[in-house]
Amino acid sequence: MLYFSCDYAEGCHPQVLDALAKTNMISTPGYGEDEFCEKAKAKIRDYIKCPQADIYFLVGGTQTNQVVIDSMLSNYDGVVAATTGHVAVHEAGAIEYSGHKVITVPGHEGKIDAAELKQMLVDHFADDSAEHMVNPGMVYISYPTEYGTLYSRDELEAVSSICKEYEIPLFIDGARLAYGLAAQSELTMADIASYADVFYIGGTKVGALFGEAVVFTKGNTPKHMITQIKQHGALLAKGRLLGVQFDALFTDDLYMKMGANAIEHADTIRNDLKEKGYQLYMENPTNQIFVVMENEGLKAFGKQVSYGFWEKYDDSKTVIRIATSWATTNEAVEAMKKIL
Amino acid sequence: MLYFSCDYAEGCHPQVLDALAKTNMISTPGYGEDEFCEKAKAKIRDYIKCPQADIYFLVGGTQTNQVVIDSMLSNYDGVVAATTGHVAVHEAGAIEYSGHKVITVPGHEGKIDAAELKQMLVDHFADDSAEHMVNPGMVYISYPTEYGTLYSRDELEAVSSICKEYEIPLFIDGARLAYGLAAQSELTMADIASYADVFYIGGTKVGALFGEAVVFTKGNTPKHMITQIKQHGALLAKGRLLGVQFDALFTDDLYMKMGANAIEHADTIRNDLKEKGYQLYMENPTNQIFVVMENEGLKAFGKQVSYGFWEKYDDSKTVIRIATSWATTNEAVEAMKKIL
Amino acid sequence: MLYFSCDYAEGCHPQVLDALAKTNMISTPGYGEDEFCEKAKAKIRDYIKCPQADIYFLVGGTQTNQVVIDSMLSNYDGVVAATTGHVAVHEAGAIEYSGHKVITVPGHEGKIDAAELKQMLVDHFADDSAEHMVNPGMVYISYPTEYGTLYSRDELEAVSSICKEYEIPLFIDGARLAYGLAAQSELTMADIASYADVFYIGGTKVGALFGEAVVFTKGNTPKHMITQIKQHGALLAKGRLLGVQFDALFTDDLYMKMGANAIEHADTIRNDLKEKGYQLYMENPTNQIFVVMENEGLKAFGKQVSYGFWEKYDDSKTVIRIATSWATTNEAVEAMKKIL
Amino acid sequence: MLYFSCDYAEGCHPQVLDALAKTNMISTPGYGEDEFCEKAKAKIRDYIKCPQADIYFLVGGTQTNQVVIDSMLSNYDGVVAATTGHVAVHEAGAIEYSGHKVITVPGHEGKIDAAELKQMLVDHFADDSAEHMVNPGMVYISYPTEYGTLYSRDELEAVSSICKEYEIPLFIDGARLAYGLAAQSELTMADIASYADVFYIGGTKVGALFGEAVVFTKGNTPKHMITQIKQHGALLAKGRLLGVQFDALFTDDLYMKMGANAIEHADTIRNDLKEKGYQLYMENPTNQIFVVMENEGLKAFGKQVSYGFWEKYDDSKTVIRIATSWATTNEAVEAMKKIL
Repeated sequence: MLYFSCDYAEGCHPQVLDALAKTNMISTPGYGEDEFCEKAKAKIRDYIKCPQADIYFLVGGTQTNQVVIDSMLSNYDGVVAATTGHVAVHEAGAIEYSGHKVITVPGHEGKIDAAELKQMLVDHFADDSAEHMVNPGMVYISYPTEYGTLYSRDELEAVSSICKEYEIPLFIDGARLAYGLAAQSELTMADIASYADVFYIGGTKVGALFGEAVVFTKGNTPKHMITQIKQHGALLAKGRLLGVQFDALFTDDLYMKMGANAIEHADTIRNDLKEKGYQLYMENPTNQIFVVMENEGLKAFGKQVSYGFWEKYDDSKTVIRIATSWATTNEAVEAMKKIL
Repeated sequence: MLYFSCDYAEGCHPQVLDALAKTNMISTPGYGEDEFCEKAKAKIRDYIKCPQADIYFLVGGTQTNQVVIDSMLSNYDGVVAATTGHVAVHEAGAIEYSGHKVITVPGHEGKIDAAELKQMLVDHFADDSAEHMVNPGMVYISYPTEYGTLYSRDELEAVSSICKEYEIPLFIDGARLAYGLAAQSELTMADIASYADVFYIGGTKVGALFGEAVVFTKGNTPKHMITQIKQHGALLAKGRLLGVQFDALFTDDLYMKMGANAIEHADTIRNDLKEKGYQLYMENPTNQIFVVMENEGLKAFGKQVSYGFWEKYDDSKTVIRIATSWATTNEAVEAMKKIL
Repeated sequence: MLYFSCDYAEGCHPQVLDALAKTNMISTPGYGEDEFCEKAKAKIRDYIKCPQADIYFLVGGTQTNQVVIDSMLSNYDGVVAATTGHVAVHEAGAIEYSGHKVITVPGHEGKIDAAELKQMLVDHFADDSAEHMVNPGMVYISYPTEYGTLYSRDELEAVSSICKEYEIPLFIDGARLAYGLAAQSELTMADIASYADVFYIGGTKVGALFGEAVVFTKGNTPKHMITQIKQHGALLAKGRLLGVQFDALFTDDLYMKMGANAIEHADTIRNDLKEKGYQLYMENPTNQIFVVMENEGLKAFGKQVSYGFWEKYDDSKTVIRIATSWATTNEAVEAMKKIL
Repeated sequence: MLYFSCDYAEGCHPQVLDALAKTNMISTPGYGEDEFCEKAKAKIRDYIKCPQADIYFLVGGTQTNQVVIDSMLSNYDGVVAATTGHVAVHEAGAIEYSGHKVITVPGHEGKIDAAELKQMLVDHFADDSAEHMVNPGMVYISYPTEYGTLYSRDELEAVSSICKEYEIPLFIDGARLAYGLAAQSELTMADIASYADVFYIGGTKVGALFGEAVVFTKGNTPKHMITQIKQHGALLAKGRLLGVQFDALFTDDLYMKMGANAIEHADTIRNDLKEKGYQLYMENPTNQIFVVMENEGLKAFGKQVSYGFWEKYDDSKTVIRIATSWATTNEAVEAMKKIL
């Protein structure tokens, strides 16, 4: 069976595993107060050219979104997201569970439109009933989006400047950040850090066993952050595991190399698909490929390739997701080509 | 100044005030464990032809929506509502505050469409990711809706039968129930009770100082309901005040007579408006009238009539809301006609 | 039946009812944006000699405690209270429901001890694990306490100065404030305002139908307070009812006169009890009297007098509560004396 | 530096690391729907002699307590715990954050007393105000306790039978379960499973990188458990990591062997301490040793041994915690003996 169903199907990159093994029997303090975490943070600060960055390591994506959003918002605030945003759809209500509304604006292949965002804010603050409504207290976008699309520099700048105008923090979910950055050339991670008030560097989907690095970029860390993390059940006892892994991810450019691996293979697969006459459901440049498949053919295909169901296309067709990752090999891509 | 801005601008109907005055110095137990509450509940049970109804009196609408939804839902549940539903827009996030997502379906002049509701449920339960999403655990509709429109018997039956099929309770927000029932002839309050698993009879907007009567119609009262009400800060110490008022509302058909008063005057005003060439923003049969006004004329109008701002129509026009109520008089309607 | 079971057994003082009746058909804006509320606030500000006071009217005590505590605290904060404090015991978990721990310190006949409070704070902040614990973010006391006792000026000053030292707001629950102030002579309501960062003036138990006036005394109102109140389901549509009532309470010194009525009668009853050889469970100067009664005699007594059960004393005796109020009459007190 | 400060200072047992390494590049579905998890669950079910056990793997202790308690309780419920219980003190309010009060009963060297528990329940349900109080909906105990003490079989049975009598589930926190079971001989893990309605087998402190196995023993798994776990941000994407680890822990009796290692070394240290004249703060049989140390000597000691601060004993002495673990070696114990 070929595995293309998601980008978290394997353990971790061998270099990450190696780092864990090498440090395994070293004793350190718990809860992230260890030297590995410090070292990893220093490397990240350096890499994103943001010396004042304050960094916290968490375990998973939904957890990170919940903790970041809840710790930065006040009771009366909600978070603005695309209708298709992960926080709006696929987190089992984790944001509402923590008391905050996800205020949706239209998603355009996963992206929010700066002009529509602006209009929503204008309308909200002009509304006589604004005090009876949830206050827009943060804007959440994902890079890449849930549809594998990317904001251009101009688009990102436009969203960011609206946030600045309204003094609303911009939160960029970077669960697949490496795959986004590797798929284009106009934005670096330092740019992401400069546009975002807070963002996270996804490890779970990019070669770590688990782990997301939350970066507060503007001296804007919520107070008692450790207490808030603990309160959400999100403080890892052996925090050093996160430090060790992120240290490895940011050594020898491993994080970006893994991003490049996924993108290279995704591009190949996209070409293979087109060559074989398949219809892409959506054009996007990152590691997720959305293909329209005949239900008939899909059955046979599914016996040899593990893919992700995305949605029904029509009565005879289905949209599936093929995801490459840091772990994808030439062999697997070639093997799938033969099956297509 | 003529007051047409809302239906909660005055105190209460004189008969309600009279009942409060007459019982004022009688001593009773607190928290609704008094004979006035018992008497009022018996009258309501009788009126809605639902002997098994379990009734709780609360103070206001948002409070009622929060308590009912939160006490009936489990952690993993959300409530389905129209995008324009009160719980979705104008309750400052009270539902999310209590941990539940408001899952929206399109609002059609305030109403949800049974077929769209069904499709949403079909899609949800067919989704491979359903367990990563909020479970649709209740359907919320308002009768009349926030736009003053009404579900027909067929529409209500369609929504209700989908709820039954999926074993999801149907909650009908009756903040303006009297105005809905008085504006049509095919549905009685007993019908509402039969379609709904839980609904409330609005007092605040229909002649009480305050108060909403929540009715669980199917032996489905959440456990420890008094504790849950208290926990939401919603248990009135002098609960008897609610009993006394609802007793008065359900004496001599006062509740429905007040409904009829509002509708009669609203119909007159709608005619007056059409006669004078005004454009109604939306046709609806209840006590809220939405009119498109020239911004120019609106300034002068606003000096003599207190109205509700609804929304911007275009650069030169505005949609306003004119609301009649139990307190509206012939004199006021005639005076406004002259101003139009 | 004589009613001494609580201080919220009747409706409201005739002057309050009169004010409601007189203003009943006047049209005003909703949600407390009316002139009656403004007028009442001005009177209160004047009475408590606190021109900068920011005042909000809410409906009930538990609701008020929940809204005040939740709006002033951050996620990571808890509220410190006596083990016997209303928020710790009798609010059905309303504080925890809003996400905050009630951190308890010993209650001494209902009061917290300043030295013990200080020690708790010293210990907390000295604890290596402080970041893994709930942060003490507010101190809650009640005046009078749930046991009808009063803090002396010195005691109040001691608690207040510890709060100042630790920059933790002091919240004084004044559900029965009139009964406390009337029972002693060293403290005025202006003193309460000066010691507290936020307090409330209880109306429900002192002659209003319902209503509590929350006073932020130090320019410390939480942001978007109306939104937060709405979010808790606590924003009364006809807010004017609260304004009208508090205006009446603060006219002709009615609030304090009602306090004095309750205290005078309570003192008489305490004397009657002692004279007849009853054992007081606890000495206190306010409107709640705790008496130890033989279970035998209690049965007969209970047929003529409605009292409050407090707790079991031993196998043959019970502690009961007798409460006087603004509504207590000479006749009732005399009638009870005969029964004793 | 010798590390005795806690039992989570290293990575994981070499056999666990080996299992992770061997399975690292195998592709599996996410979220625990993999064969490793299935295999580990089967081994645990077998080991605890509870074929109907339903098992979920979570990442950490506070997270587990929050998810278990919140998913099993209704809104109106609180959890009963010792005043010294982890959920009551050291989880940053994670339980209250999820809306539930921690109702405390006295802790006796960490344990609750069955008779006191019973009395609390008797009093609660006899209280006229019970509906205004938080309902005791679960009993939480830890085995071993936070003070390293153990319930005897009789004590456990007594607590369990009270829970059964009141139909309240008993939750046993087994963060250090191996260290408890290895320190006595009258109880097996199967006994724990039989007394508890839900318990967890701690991995984080017993040789795993992280991970706790929650076991519902009585067919009592909360509905939509995966959704609830996700909602708390607690669903690990690469759930297989937990399966792989627990499979290793339950292979060749590794879990219990690690427990025995810690206990053997703890017993040696306790003897060494007594021999050298140190005062134990508390006698207990598990892996945590509480010693009273002179502040003077402690400074020097601390330069060579990393220990845990527990609390101030008096002005010249301090209580410290020395913890052994699966990772403790003969060499370290002997080296410390020389330092004592």
